[in-house]
Amino acid sequence: MSEPKLFTPGPLTTSRTVKEAMLVDLGSREVEFIELVRAIRAGLLALADGTADHEAVLLQGSGTYAIESVISSAIPSDGKILVLANGVYGERIATIAERHGIATEVLRTPVHEPPTASVVREALATDAAITHVALVHCETTTGILNPLTEIGAEVRAAGKTFLVDAMSSFGGIPISLPECGADFLISSSNKCLEGVPGFAFVLARRTKLAECEGRARTISLDLHAQWAGLEKNGQFRFTPPTHAMLAFARALEELTAEGWIAARNRRYQENQSVLVEGMRRLGFRTLIDSAHQSPIITTFHDPADPAFSFEAFHDALKARGCAIYPGKIGGTDAFRVGSVGHIDRGDIEALLVAVAETIDELGITL
Amino acid sequence: MSEPKLFTPGPLTTSRTVKEAMLVDLGSREVEFIELVRAIRAGLLALADGTADHEAVLLQGSGTYAIESVISSAIPSDGKILVLANGVYGERIATIAERHGIATEVLRTPVHEPPTASVVREALATDAAITHVALVHCETTTGILNPLTEIGAEVRAAGKTFLVDAMSSFGGIPISLPECGADFLISSSNKCLEGVPGFAFVLARRTKLAECEGRARTISLDLHAQWAGLEKNGQFRFTPPTHAMLAFARALEELTAEGWIAARNRRYQENQSVLVEGMRRLGFRTLIDSAHQSPIITTFHDPADPAFSFEAFHDALKARGCAIYPGKIGGTDAFRVGSVGHIDRGDIEALLVAVAETIDELGITL
Repeated sequence: MSEPKLFTPGPLTTSRTVKEAMLVDLGSREVEFIELVRAIRAGLLALADGTADHEAVLLQGSGTYAIESVISSAIPSDGKILVLANGVYGERIATIAERHGIATEVLRTPVHEPPTASVVREALATDAAITHVALVHCETTTGILNPLTEIGAEVRAAGKTFLVDAMSSFGGIPISLPECGADFLISSSNKCLEGVPGFAFVLARRTKLAECEGRARTISLDLHAQWAGLEKNGQFRFTPPTHAMLAFARALEELTAEGWIAARNRRYQENQSVLVEGMRRLGFRTLIDSAHQSPIITTFHDPADPAFSFEAFHDALKARGCAIYPGKIGGTDAFRVGSVGHIDRGDIEALLVAVAETIDELGITL
Repeated sequence: MSEPKLFTPGPLTTSRTVKEAMLVDLGSREVEFIELVRAIRAGLLALADGTADHEAVLLQGSGTYAIESVISSAIPSDGKILVLANGVYGERIATIAERHGIATEVLRTPVHEPPTASVVREALATDAAITHVALVHCETTTGILNPLTEIGAEVRAAGKTFLVDAMSSFGGIPISLPECGADFLISSSNKCLEGVPGFAFVLARRTKLAECEGRARTISLDLHAQWAGLEKNGQFRFTPPTHAMLAFARALEELTAEGWIAARNRRYQENQSVLVEGMRRLGFRTLIDSAHQSPIITTFHDPADPAFSFEAFHDALKARGCAIYPGKIGGTDAFRVGSVGHIDRGDIEALLVAVAETIDELGITL
């Protein structure tokens, strides 16, 4: 199986040693596994400055499952959610809330524009029925970074519950639960923590988690029941992805060895800077203003040259060992390049060489 | 990490080569992954005698997620489900249906007694409101095998939709979709197909799957949307467990090499026979009559000797490299031993030696 480097929003390239941690079959009721679960939960809370008032809940499945778990477990039948949306993942939160019959208000900004604290303040002042506010920290649709702390302060000041989709940012950008005021923060195993896909997690304020009891619309995604199960005997209610969890525990060790989230953030920042500088030098233009650009993933406009097709560009890069991502964003033709995962400056430089060769090979003028 | 053999209902012991298949990071939008998904879906249908009228849908998460996906996607708001329950997994189906506000009737038999075709016929004749019938093929609570084909014939004769939880049987016991008449059959990656945990799957009659459109109560577990996504571009809607799927593809190859489900069934049958004969020789008694006993997992009564505690028994076996499972079943004190996974007669014989040593060490009289 050929193995290109993944410059994508995830699943990402992980280290060989993270993958090798999966070469063990662990019984999901055995003491070794219970200890693994405990260590992962404690490790996640430590990464987010979790206090004695916070809890970590692991949930089988993709990140979207954990988003739906929070939406469908935390919001009571008479609640109302305000969703701040500037991309696919914000829209998805609204779609999930609506599927559960939850009153939903969507505050949209253009994909290249973050919501502002003042607009949120105004929306909360205007509509007293709103009980919950959801924000996507890094909107993977574009790579835009939304103002977590500023919006968190408004939500807190208004006494609302704050839900944060930190799927593609957690582990790659420092996030402090007490500082940003998130009541529920969601991310997954296969993003910046550089594990493999298989589960997601919710970091929550314990009082808010306790309030979820009896609210869940499903069994599988019942966040309170999942938490209660983990608390009762340290085990999952339903079969957990034991191998993905072994990989994740190893990935957390490697994060510590790298120098914690600060060091990882520096690596990703460097990856992204080298990428953008190199791509600009080749003539590519970015979609997001650098003031709002995350170090996670970067959107580039397709070249105007009609000789450019994303498919041919992708395939020529793939033949050179680099996988990139499409990026249809509204009417804008664009593609995306991730700067996260087990990749460094050298990998980005190799990608830039591959891009230069590819535009030459395909005869694209920039 | 010490690695005992797992004589459990899953996650199971898998082969080294299945686990080694996970040492690759695959992009979830890349052509290699799309081909992997296609091959797994086709392979699953072939294993169940699937015809041109059947479809395979893969779903991230544990087996329970796929059960909930079917319940919450297939049954319309004015539908009613009859659940045949003789254990925890039957009860769970009822709990899921009730959580979604679905009219639910539970037909219970004692844990050691399978439901009969005539009782099902009568129930369907009595209550015309019933639209769906759910049966657990092998109830992992005890290891009892319920009469799939006989009950399927009644459900079909009555024109109802037949949901089959084949979680712990599929791959280890031959099941033919046309023969048993299942409209939706659910199993998971980490049971008798000997993959690792990470996803589940639904084998469905296409017409019934098409009827699910617009019925789903959730986004993540929307079976029709998941199917439509896979059909549209061969990809998952949300991040798939790429590594678990690589392991699964390898596991399917190893199933073929072993001689398909017939050969695997023979190995499991032999494992179970050797186990029961050996345990009976040591003085243990089984809960389930051999007429209804599956080759998957076997429940043994705890010895009457007050010197016996499951915990001490488990730990002493674990120290000898064998992990077994507790088995609280109603008021009955019992434990369970799985005979499935990458284990053979030699492993069972080693387990029997360990059990003999353990009862000796703990001074248990049988």
